[in-house]
Amino acid sequence: MDNKPSLYTSLSPALLHLYDLSSSVVVIIDVFRATSTIASALYNGAKCVIPVDSVPKAIEISKSIGGIAAGERDGQIAAGLSHGNSPLEYTREFIEDQTLVLTTTNGTRLLQMALDKNADTIISGSFPNLSAVCDFLINEKKNVVLGCAGWKDRFNLEDTLFAGAVINRVKKEFTIHCDSSLMAETMYAKYKNNIIRFAPQLTHYHRLVERFGLIEDIKYCLSNDLANVVPVYSDGKLVLNKSVGQ
Amino acid sequence: MDNKPSLYTSLSPALLHLYDLSSSVVVIIDVFRATSTIASALYNGAKCVIPVDSVPKAIEISKSIGGIAAGERDGQIAAGLSHGNSPLEYTREFIEDQTLVLTTTNGTRLLQMALDKNADTIISGSFPNLSAVCDFLINEKKNVVLGCAGWKDRFNLEDTLFAGAVINRVKKEFTIHCDSSLMAETMYAKYKNNIIRFAPQLTHYHRLVERFGLIEDIKYCLSNDLANVVPVYSDGKLVLNKSVGQ
Repeated sequence: MDNKPSLYTSLSPALLHLYDLSSSVVVIIDVFRATSTIASALYNGAKCVIPVDSVPKAIEISKSIGGIAAGERDGQIAAGLSHGNSPLEYTREFIEDQTLVLTTTNGTRLLQMALDKNADTIISGSFPNLSAVCDFLINEKKNVVLGCAGWKDRFNLEDTLFAGAVINRVKKEFTIHCDSSLMAETMYAKYKNNIIRFAPQLTHYHRLVERFGLIEDIKYCLSNDLANVVPVYSDGKLVLNKSVGQ
Repeated sequence: MDNKPSLYTSLSPALLHLYDLSSSVVVIIDVFRATSTIASALYNGAKCVIPVDSVPKAIEISKSIGGIAAGERDGQIAAGLSHGNSPLEYTREFIEDQTLVLTTTNGTRLLQMALDKNADTIISGSFPNLSAVCDFLINEKKNVVLGCAGWKDRFNLEDTLFAGAVINRVKKEFTIHCDSSLMAETMYAKYKNNIIRFAPQLTHYHRLVERFGLIEDIKYCLSNDLANVVPVYSDGKLVLNKSVGQ
Protein backbone atom coordinates (compact mmCIF):
# COMPACT_ATOMS: atom_id res chain seq x y z
CA MET A 1 0.00 0.00 0.00
CA ASP A 2 1.19 3.47 -0.76
CA ASN A 3 0.68 6.45 1.48
CA LYS A 4 -0.72 8.81 -1.07
CA PRO A 5 -3.89 10.64 -0.15
CA SER A 6 -7.14 9.31 -1.61
CA LEU A 7 -9.28 10.91 -4.31
CA TYR A 8 -12.97 10.23 -4.87
CA THR A 9 -15.55 11.72 -7.22
CA SER A 10 -19.12 12.34 -6.06
CA LEU A 11 -21.33 12.50 -9.15
CA SER A 12 -24.30 14.23 -7.48
CA PRO A 13 -25.09 16.05 -4.22
CA ALA A 14 -27.33 13.06 -3.46
CA LEU A 15 -24.19 10.89 -3.29
CA LEU A 16 -22.00 13.22 -1.22
CA HIS A 17 -22.97 11.52 2.06
CA LEU A 18 -21.06 8.43 0.93
CA TYR A 19 -17.69 10.13 1.35
CA ASP A 20 -15.72 11.19 4.41
CA LEU A 21 -15.24 14.91 4.01
CA SER A 22 -13.79 15.67 7.42
CA SER A 23 -10.24 14.95 6.32
CA SER A 24 -10.69 16.08 2.71
CA VAL A 25 -10.40 19.04 0.42
CA VAL A 26 -13.81 19.21 -1.26
CA VAL A 27 -13.90 20.77 -4.72
CA ILE A 28 -17.34 22.21 -5.51
CA ILE A 29 -17.93 21.83 -9.25
CA ASP A 30 -20.79 23.63 -11.00
CA VAL A 31 -19.37 24.32 -14.45
CA PHE A 32 -22.57 25.87 -15.90
CA ARG A 33 -22.13 28.42 -14.35
CA ALA A 34 -21.73 29.09 -10.63
CA THR A 35 -18.13 27.99 -10.14
CA SER A 36 -17.03 29.52 -13.45
CA THR A 37 -18.57 32.82 -12.37
CA ILE A 38 -16.95 32.65 -8.92
CA ALA A 39 -13.52 32.12 -10.53
CA SER A 40 -14.16 34.98 -12.95
CA ALA A 41 -15.21 37.45 -10.23
CA LEU A 42 -12.26 36.67 -7.94
CA TYR A 43 -9.80 36.65 -10.82
CA ASN A 44 -11.01 40.11 -11.76
CA GLY A 45 -10.47 41.49 -8.31
CA ALA A 46 -13.69 40.96 -6.37
CA LYS A 47 -13.00 41.22 -2.63
CA CYS A 48 -14.98 38.03 -2.09
CA VAL A 49 -18.01 36.08 -3.25
CA ILE A 50 -20.76 35.32 -0.73
CA PRO A 51 -22.80 32.34 -1.94
CA VAL A 52 -26.40 32.30 -0.69
CA ASP A 53 -29.28 29.98 -1.38
CA SER A 54 -32.15 32.41 -1.98
CA VAL A 55 -32.96 35.68 -3.69
CA PRO A 56 -34.25 37.38 -0.50
CA LYS A 57 -31.00 36.52 1.29
CA ALA A 58 -28.96 37.89 -1.59
CA ILE A 59 -30.91 41.17 -1.42
CA GLU A 60 -30.68 41.41 2.36
CA ILE A 61 -26.95 40.68 2.61
CA SER A 62 -25.97 42.86 -0.32
CA LYS A 63 -27.89 45.79 1.16
CA SER A 64 -26.30 45.41 4.57
CA ILE A 65 -22.74 45.32 3.24
CA GLY A 66 -23.02 47.38 0.06
CA GLY A 67 -22.44 44.36 -2.17
CA ILE A 68 -23.64 43.42 -5.63
CA ALA A 69 -26.62 41.05 -5.53
CA ALA A 70 -26.65 38.63 -8.41
CA GLY A 71 -28.56 35.58 -9.47
CA GLU A 72 -30.92 34.13 -12.01
CA ARG A 73 -34.03 32.07 -11.95
CA ASP A 74 -35.03 30.36 -15.18
CA GLY A 75 -32.36 32.13 -17.16
CA GLN A 76 -33.46 35.64 -16.22
CA ILE A 77 -31.95 38.01 -13.66
CA ALA A 78 -34.13 37.33 -10.64
CA ALA A 79 -36.62 39.99 -9.51
CA GLY A 80 -34.97 42.32 -7.00
CA LEU A 81 -31.43 41.55 -8.18
CA SER A 82 -29.32 43.66 -10.49
CA HIS A 83 -27.01 41.12 -12.11
CA GLY A 84 -27.06 37.59 -13.44
CA ASN A 85 -25.06 34.38 -13.32
CA SER A 86 -22.88 34.94 -16.36
CA PRO A 87 -19.12 34.85 -15.76
CA LEU A 88 -18.79 37.40 -18.57
CA GLU A 89 -20.58 40.07 -16.55
CA TYR A 90 -17.83 40.17 -13.95
CA THR A 91 -15.13 42.14 -15.72
CA ARG A 92 -12.39 43.87 -13.75
CA GLU A 93 -13.95 47.27 -14.49
CA PHE A 94 -17.16 46.18 -12.87
CA ILE A 95 -16.23 43.86 -10.02
CA GLU A 96 -12.82 44.98 -8.73
CA ASP A 97 -12.92 45.64 -4.98
CA GLN A 98 -16.60 44.77 -4.84
CA THR A 99 -18.31 42.01 -2.90
CA LEU A 100 -20.46 39.73 -5.04
CA VAL A 101 -23.46 38.17 -3.29
CA LEU A 102 -24.36 35.32 -5.58
CA THR A 103 -27.44 33.15 -5.31
CA THR A 104 -27.27 29.86 -7.14
CA THR A 105 -29.16 26.65 -6.58
CA ASN A 106 -27.13 23.54 -7.27
CA GLY A 107 -23.67 24.88 -6.38
CA THR A 108 -24.71 26.67 -3.20
CA ARG A 109 -26.60 23.67 -1.92
CA LEU A 110 -23.60 21.40 -2.45
CA LEU A 111 -21.36 23.86 -0.65
CA GLN A 112 -23.74 23.94 2.31
CA MET A 113 -23.77 20.13 2.40
CA ALA A 114 -19.96 20.07 2.48
CA LEU A 115 -20.01 22.54 5.38
CA ASP A 116 -22.57 20.47 7.24
CA LYS A 117 -20.35 17.43 6.83
CA ASN A 118 -17.36 19.28 8.27
CA ALA A 119 -15.23 19.33 5.17
CA ASP A 120 -11.64 20.10 6.04
CA THR A 121 -11.29 22.62 3.20
CA ILE A 122 -13.72 23.76 0.50
CA ILE A 123 -12.65 25.24 -2.82
CA SER A 124 -14.52 25.77 -6.06
CA GLY A 125 -13.46 24.59 -9.49
CA SER A 126 -14.34 24.86 -13.16
CA PHE A 127 -12.41 24.85 -16.41
CA PRO A 128 -11.47 28.55 -16.13
CA ASN A 129 -9.45 27.71 -13.01
CA LEU A 130 -8.44 24.12 -13.79
CA SER A 131 -4.67 24.50 -13.40
CA ALA A 132 -4.90 26.51 -10.20
CA VAL A 133 -7.20 23.88 -8.65
CA CYS A 134 -4.83 21.07 -9.64
CA ASP A 135 -1.78 22.88 -8.24
CA PHE A 136 -3.67 23.51 -5.00
CA LEU A 137 -4.67 19.85 -4.61
CA ILE A 138 -1.15 18.62 -5.27
CA ASN A 139 0.33 21.10 -2.80
CA GLU A 140 -2.13 20.34 -0.02
CA LYS A 141 -1.35 16.60 -0.01
CA LYS A 142 -4.71 15.91 1.62
CA ASN A 143 -7.51 13.55 0.63
CA VAL A 144 -9.75 14.97 -2.10
CA VAL A 145 -13.44 14.67 -2.91
CA LEU A 146 -14.45 16.12 -6.27
CA GLY A 147 -18.06 17.17 -5.73
CA CYS A 148 -20.19 17.56 -8.85
CA ALA A 149 -23.19 19.83 -8.30
CA GLY A 150 -25.21 18.29 -11.11
CA TRP A 151 -28.66 19.65 -11.92
CA LYS A 152 -31.31 19.16 -9.26
CA ASP A 153 -29.39 16.10 -8.06
CA ARG A 154 -29.14 14.60 -11.55
CA PHE A 155 -25.79 13.57 -12.92
CA ASN A 156 -24.45 15.93 -15.55
CA LEU A 157 -21.57 15.53 -17.92
CA GLU A 158 -20.00 18.99 -17.77
CA ASP A 159 -19.25 18.68 -14.05
CA THR A 160 -18.05 15.11 -14.57
CA LEU A 161 -15.76 16.18 -17.41
CA PHE A 162 -14.17 18.78 -15.15
CA ALA A 163 -13.64 16.14 -12.45
CA GLY A 164 -12.02 14.02 -15.16
CA ALA A 165 -9.76 16.90 -16.20
CA VAL A 166 -8.54 17.27 -12.62
CA ILE A 167 -7.95 13.53 -12.26
CA ASN A 168 -6.08 13.44 -15.55
CA ARG A 169 -3.61 15.99 -14.18
CA VAL A 170 -3.24 14.99 -10.53
CA LYS A 171 -3.68 11.21 -10.54
CA LYS A 172 -0.05 10.34 -9.91
CA GLU A 173 -0.23 12.08 -6.56
CA PHE A 174 -3.30 10.21 -5.29
CA THR A 175 -4.59 6.72 -4.58
CA ILE A 176 -7.76 6.35 -6.66
CA HIS A 177 -10.02 3.31 -6.21
CA CYS A 178 -13.30 4.73 -7.41
CA ASP A 179 -15.34 3.82 -10.48
CA SER A 180 -16.74 7.36 -10.65
CA SER A 181 -13.22 8.75 -11.02
CA LEU A 182 -12.25 6.12 -13.59
CA MET A 183 -15.35 6.96 -15.62
CA ALA A 184 -14.82 10.73 -15.30
CA GLU A 185 -11.25 10.52 -16.51
CA THR A 186 -12.20 8.19 -19.38
CA MET A 187 -14.93 10.58 -20.55
CA TYR A 188 -12.55 13.53 -20.28
CA ALA A 189 -9.83 11.74 -22.24
CA LYS A 190 -12.32 11.08 -25.02
CA TYR A 191 -13.48 14.69 -25.37
CA LYS A 192 -10.62 16.82 -24.10
CA ASN A 193 -9.48 17.98 -27.52
CA ASN A 194 -12.92 19.06 -28.69
CA ILE A 195 -14.88 19.74 -25.55
CA ILE A 196 -16.66 22.80 -26.94
CA ARG A 197 -17.67 20.89 -30.07
CA PHE A 198 -19.02 18.12 -27.82
CA ALA A 199 -21.07 20.59 -25.75
CA PRO A 200 -24.25 20.46 -27.91
CA GLN A 201 -24.72 16.86 -26.73
CA LEU A 202 -25.04 17.96 -23.10
CA THR A 203 -28.56 18.14 -21.66
CA HIS A 204 -27.71 21.45 -20.02
CA TYR A 205 -26.54 22.96 -23.31
CA HIS A 206 -30.10 22.95 -24.61
CA ARG A 207 -31.36 24.95 -21.66
CA LEU A 208 -28.55 27.49 -21.77
CA VAL A 209 -28.07 27.92 -25.49
CA GLU A 210 -31.33 27.02 -27.21
CA ARG A 211 -33.56 28.65 -24.59
CA PHE A 212 -31.37 31.50 -23.39
CA GLY A 213 -28.78 32.04 -26.15
CA LEU A 214 -25.79 31.80 -23.82
CA ILE A 215 -23.26 30.33 -26.22
CA GLU A 216 -20.49 32.70 -25.14
CA ASP A 217 -21.04 31.67 -21.53
CA ILE A 218 -20.71 28.04 -22.54
CA LYS A 219 -17.42 28.67 -24.33
CA TYR A 220 -16.01 30.56 -21.36
CA CYS A 221 -17.10 27.89 -18.86
CA LEU A 222 -15.42 25.16 -20.93
CA SER A 223 -12.12 27.01 -21.56
CA ASN A 224 -9.07 26.25 -19.44
CA ASP A 225 -7.36 28.76 -17.19
CA LEU A 226 -9.06 32.01 -18.23
CA ALA A 227 -9.49 32.89 -14.54
CA ASN A 228 -6.80 30.82 -12.95
CA VAL A 229 -7.27 31.38 -9.22
CA VAL A 230 -8.32 29.20 -6.28
CA PRO A 231 -11.51 30.33 -4.52
CA VAL A 232 -11.35 29.03 -0.92
CA TYR A 233 -14.33 29.07 1.41
CA SER A 234 -13.79 30.75 4.75
CA ASP A 235 -16.30 32.23 7.19
CA GLY A 236 -19.20 32.39 4.76
CA LYS A 237 -17.19 33.73 1.83
CA LEU A 238 -15.16 32.51 -1.09
CA VAL A 239 -11.87 34.39 -1.16
CA LEU A 240 -8.66 34.08 -3.13
CA ASN A 241 -6.29 31.50 -1.76
CA LYS A 242 -3.19 33.46 -0.88
CA SER A 243 -0.64 30.65 -0.84
CA VAL A 244 -1.24 29.67 -4.47
CA GLY A 245 -2.81 32.98 -5.54
CA GLN A 246 -1.79 35.65 -7.98
CA MET B 1 -41.29 16.54 -30.85
CA ASP B 2 -41.54 12.83 -31.48
CA ASN B 3 -43.82 10.50 -29.63
CA LYS B 4 -41.30 7.88 -28.69
CA PRO B 5 -41.24 6.77 -25.08
CA SER B 6 -38.49 8.20 -22.88
CA LEU B 7 -35.46 6.39 -21.50
CA TYR B 8 -33.47 7.46 -18.45
CA THR B 9 -30.57 5.89 -16.56
CA SER B 10 -30.40 6.08 -12.77
CA LEU B 11 -26.77 5.56 -11.75
CA SER B 12 -27.45 4.68 -8.10
CA PRO B 13 -30.40 3.74 -5.88
CA ALA B 14 -29.83 7.13 -4.21
CA LEU B 15 -30.84 8.80 -7.50
CA LEU B 16 -33.89 6.68 -8.31
CA HIS B 17 -36.28 9.16 -6.67
CA LEU B 18 -35.50 11.63 -9.48
CA TYR B 19 -37.40 9.57 -12.04
CA ASP B 20 -41.08 8.92 -12.58
CA LEU B 21 -41.45 5.16 -12.36
CA SER B 22 -45.23 4.95 -12.37
CA SER B 23 -45.44 4.90 -16.16
CA SER B 24 -42.13 3.09 -16.71
CA VAL B 25 -40.58 -0.29 -17.13
CA VAL B 26 -37.79 -0.31 -14.54
CA VAL B 27 -34.82 -2.55 -15.30
CA ILE B 28 -33.04 -3.60 -12.10
CA ILE B 29 -29.33 -3.97 -12.92
CA ASP B 30 -26.92 -5.66 -10.50
CA VAL B 31 -24.39 -7.27 -12.82
CA PHE B 32 -22.10 -8.62 -10.04
CA ARG B 33 -24.05 -10.81 -9.38
CA ALA B 34 -27.70 -10.73 -8.35
CA THR B 35 -29.33 -10.08 -11.71
CA SER B 36 -26.94 -12.42 -13.53
CA THR B 37 -27.84 -15.16 -11.05
CA ILE B 38 -31.59 -14.49 -11.40
CA ALA B 39 -31.32 -14.82 -15.20
CA SER B 40 -29.28 -18.01 -14.83
CA ALA B 41 -31.75 -19.65 -12.43
CA LEU B 42 -34.83 -18.84 -14.53
CA TYR B 43 -33.10 -19.80 -17.77
CA ASN B 44 -32.28 -23.17 -16.24
CA GLY B 45 -35.87 -23.83 -15.28
CA ALA B 46 -36.36 -22.45 -11.77
CA LYS B 47 -40.07 -21.99 -11.09
CA CYS B 48 -39.37 -18.52 -9.75
CA VAL B 49 -36.88 -16.44 -7.78
CA ILE B 50 -38.06 -14.77 -4.59
CA PRO B 51 -35.75 -11.87 -3.75
CA VAL B 52 -35.54 -11.04 -0.04
CA ASP B 53 -33.48 -8.53 1.88
CA SER B 54 -32.22 -10.60 4.82
CA VAL B 55 -30.83 -14.01 5.67
CA PRO B 56 -33.52 -14.80 8.30
CA LYS B 57 -36.26 -14.02 5.75
CA ALA B 58 -34.57 -16.26 3.19
CA ILE B 59 -34.49 -19.12 5.71
CA GLU B 60 -38.08 -18.57 6.84
CA ILE B 61 -39.59 -18.34 3.38
CA SER B 62 -37.59 -21.22 1.92
CA LYS B 63 -38.66 -23.46 4.81
CA SER B 64 -42.32 -22.59 4.43
CA ILE B 65 -42.42 -23.29 0.69
CA GLY B 66 -39.70 -25.92 0.33
CA GLY B 67 -37.44 -23.57 -1.63
CA ILE B 68 -33.69 -23.23 -1.90
CA ALA B 69 -32.32 -20.50 0.36
CA ALA B 70 -29.31 -18.77 -1.08
CA GLY B 71 -27.18 -15.78 -0.34
CA GLU B 72 -23.75 -14.57 0.65
CA ARG B 73 -22.34 -12.13 3.09
CA ASP B 74 -18.76 -11.01 2.57
CA GLY B 75 -18.20 -13.54 -0.19
CA GLN B 76 -19.17 -16.59 1.87
CA ILE B 77 -22.42 -18.54 1.85
CA ALA B 78 -24.29 -16.93 4.75
CA ALA B 79 -24.78 -18.89 7.98
CA GLY B 80 -28.03 -20.86 7.79
CA LEU B 81 -28.16 -20.85 3.98
CA SER B 82 -27.16 -23.70 1.71
CA HIS B 83 -26.14 -21.93 -1.49
CA GLY B 84 -24.39 -18.78 -2.64
CA ASN B 85 -24.79 -15.94 -5.10
CA SER B 86 -22.89 -17.44 -8.01
CA PRO B 87 -24.83 -17.76 -11.28
CA LEU B 88 -22.75 -20.88 -12.00
CA GLU B 89 -24.34 -22.77 -9.11
CA TYR B 90 -27.74 -22.70 -10.74
CA THR B 91 -27.42 -25.38 -13.39
CA ARG B 92 -30.50 -27.02 -14.86
CA GLU B 93 -29.76 -30.25 -12.96
CA PHE B 94 -29.89 -28.38 -9.71
CA ILE B 95 -32.50 -25.66 -10.08
CA GLU B 96 -35.12 -26.97 -12.53
CA ASP B 97 -38.61 -26.80 -11.02
CA GLN B 98 -37.22 -25.38 -7.79
CA THR B 99 -37.97 -22.05 -6.14
CA LEU B 100 -34.87 -20.00 -5.39
CA VAL B 101 -35.13 -17.69 -2.37
CA LEU B 102 -32.27 -15.30 -2.93
CA THR B 103 -31.04 -12.71 -0.47
CA THR B 104 -28.96 -9.92 -1.94
CA THR B 105 -28.28 -6.43 -0.69
CA ASN B 106 -27.97 -3.85 -3.45
CA GLY B 107 -30.26 -5.45 -6.02
CA THR B 108 -33.06 -6.35 -3.61
CA ARG B 109 -33.07 -2.90 -2.09
CA LEU B 110 -33.37 -1.26 -5.49
CA LEU B 111 -36.21 -3.59 -6.42
CA GLN B 112 -38.05 -2.67 -3.21
CA MET B 113 -37.57 1.02 -3.98
CA ALA B 114 -39.03 0.54 -7.45
CA LEU B 115 -42.05 -1.21 -5.90
CA ASP B 116 -42.48 1.57 -3.35
CA LYS B 117 -42.48 4.10 -6.18
CA ASN B 118 -45.20 2.18 -8.04
CA ALA B 119 -43.15 1.15 -11.03
CA ASP B 120 -45.42 0.08 -13.86
CA THR B 121 -43.32 -3.01 -14.62
CA ILE B 122 -40.11 -4.34 -13.05
CA ILE B 123 -37.70 -6.65 -14.84
CA SER B 124 -34.10 -7.58 -14.11
CA GLY B 125 -31.17 -7.32 -16.50
CA SER B 126 -27.53 -8.25 -16.89
CA PHE B 127 -25.26 -9.22 -19.75
CA PRO B 128 -26.43 -12.87 -19.73
CA ASN B 129 -29.91 -11.67 -20.71
CA LEU B 130 -29.04 -8.52 -22.66
CA SER B 131 -30.86 -9.35 -25.90
CA ALA B 132 -34.01 -10.56 -24.18
CA VAL B 133 -34.18 -7.37 -22.11
CA CYS B 134 -33.73 -5.21 -25.22
CA ASP B 135 -36.43 -7.09 -27.14
CA PHE B 136 -38.79 -6.72 -24.19
CA LEU B 137 -38.22 -2.97 -23.91
CA ILE B 138 -38.75 -2.44 -27.63
CA ASN B 139 -41.93 -4.52 -27.62
CA GLU B 140 -43.45 -2.84 -24.58
CA LYS B 141 -43.21 0.67 -26.09
CA LYS B 142 -43.33 2.19 -22.60
CA ASN B 143 -41.03 4.65 -20.88
CA VAL B 144 -37.91 3.01 -19.45
CA VAL B 145 -35.75 3.66 -16.41
CA LEU B 146 -32.51 1.68 -16.31
CA GLY B 147 -31.80 1.33 -12.59
CA CYS B 148 -28.22 0.58 -11.61
CA ALA B 149 -27.95 -1.06 -8.19
CA GLY B 150 -24.39 0.12 -7.64
CA TRP B 151 -22.58 -0.84 -4.45
CA LYS B 152 -23.93 0.58 -1.21
CA ASP B 153 -25.28 3.50 -3.22
CA ARG B 154 -21.98 4.16 -4.95
CA PHE B 155 -21.81 4.38 -8.71
CA ASN B 156 -20.24 1.35 -10.33
CA LEU B 157 -19.10 0.80 -13.85
CA GLU B 158 -20.32 -2.74 -14.50
CA ASP B 159 -23.96 -1.76 -14.00
CA THR B 160 -23.41 1.41 -16.03
CA LEU B 161 -21.82 -0.58 -18.87
CA PHE B 162 -24.87 -2.82 -19.01
CA ALA B 163 -27.14 0.24 -19.15
CA GLY B 164 -24.95 1.46 -22.00
CA ALA B 165 -25.26 -1.87 -23.80
CA VAL B 166 -29.06 -1.63 -23.64
CA ILE B 167 -29.05 1.97 -24.85
CA ASN B 168 -26.72 1.06 -27.69
CA ARG B 169 -29.28 -1.46 -28.95
CA VAL B 170 -32.61 0.24 -28.27
CA LYS B 171 -31.89 3.96 -28.68
CA LYS B 172 -33.68 4.42 -31.99
CA GLU B 173 -36.95 3.47 -30.31
CA PHE B 174 -36.69 6.00 -27.46
CA THR B 175 -36.33 9.70 -26.78
CA ILE B 176 -33.20 10.07 -24.66
CA HIS B 177 -32.32 13.42 -23.08
CA CYS B 178 -30.21 12.28 -20.18
CA ASP B 179 -26.51 12.79 -19.55
CA SER B 180 -26.35 9.54 -17.58
CA SER B 181 -27.52 7.61 -20.62
CA LEU B 182 -25.14 9.45 -22.95
CA MET B 183 -22.25 8.65 -20.61
CA ALA B 184 -23.30 5.01 -20.18
CA GLU B 185 -23.49 4.44 -23.90
CA THR B 186 -20.17 6.19 -24.51
CA MET B 187 -18.42 4.05 -21.90
CA TYR B 188 -19.99 0.90 -23.34
CA ALA B 189 -18.95 1.83 -26.88
CA LYS B 190 -15.38 2.22 -25.69
CA TYR B 191 -15.15 -1.17 -23.96
CA LYS B 192 -17.70 -3.37 -25.70
CA ASN B 193 -15.17 -5.39 -27.67
CA ASN B 194 -12.98 -6.19 -24.67
CA ILE B 195 -15.22 -5.88 -21.67
CA ILE B 196 -13.72 -8.89 -19.86
CA ARG B 197 -10.21 -7.56 -20.40
CA PHE B 198 -11.36 -4.21 -18.99
CA ALA B 199 -12.85 -5.85 -15.88
CA PRO B 200 -9.67 -5.72 -13.73
CA GLN B 201 -10.04 -1.91 -13.68
CA LEU B 202 -13.41 -2.14 -11.91
CA THR B 203 -13.43 -1.50 -8.16
CA HIS B 204 -15.74 -4.47 -7.69
CA TYR B 205 -13.39 -6.82 -9.54
CA HIS B 206 -10.86 -6.59 -6.73
CA ARG B 207 -13.39 -7.68 -4.16
CA LEU B 208 -14.72 -10.57 -6.23
CA VAL B 209 -11.55 -11.87 -7.84
CA GLU B 210 -8.63 -10.88 -5.64
CA ARG B 211 -10.43 -11.56 -2.36
CA PHE B 212 -12.78 -14.37 -3.35
CA GLY B 213 -11.32 -15.86 -6.54
CA LEU B 214 -14.52 -15.56 -8.53
CA ILE B 215 -13.03 -15.04 -11.99
CA GLU B 216 -15.43 -17.51 -13.66
CA ASP B 217 -18.37 -15.64 -12.14
CA ILE B 218 -17.03 -12.40 -13.56
CA LYS B 219 -16.71 -13.87 -17.03
CA TYR B 220 -20.23 -15.25 -16.92
CA CYS B 221 -21.71 -12.00 -15.65
CA LEU B 222 -20.05 -10.04 -18.46
CA SER B 223 -20.98 -12.44 -21.30
CA ASN B 224 -23.94 -11.70 -23.53
CA ASP B 225 -27.01 -13.90 -23.80
CA LEU B 226 -25.90 -17.02 -21.92
CA ALA B 227 -29.26 -17.00 -20.09
CA ASN B 228 -31.42 -15.05 -22.47
CA VAL B 229 -34.74 -14.73 -20.65
CA VAL B 230 -36.72 -11.84 -19.15
CA PRO B 231 -37.32 -12.09 -15.39
CA VAL B 232 -40.48 -10.08 -14.59
CA TYR B 233 -41.50 -9.19 -11.06
CA SER B 234 -45.01 -10.17 -10.07
CA ASP B 235 -46.52 -10.73 -6.62
CA GLY B 236 -43.24 -10.99 -4.76
CA LYS B 237 -41.51 -13.21 -7.32
CA LEU B 238 -39.40 -12.93 -10.42
CA VAL B 239 -40.84 -15.22 -13.07
CA LEU B 240 -40.19 -15.84 -16.74
CA ASN B 241 -41.95 -13.39 -19.01
CA LYS B 242 -44.22 -15.55 -21.12
CA SER B 243 -44.78 -13.18 -24.05
CA VAL B 244 -41.10 -12.95 -24.98
CA GLY B 245 -40.04 -16.18 -23.26
CA GLN B 246 -38.47 -19.35 -24.50
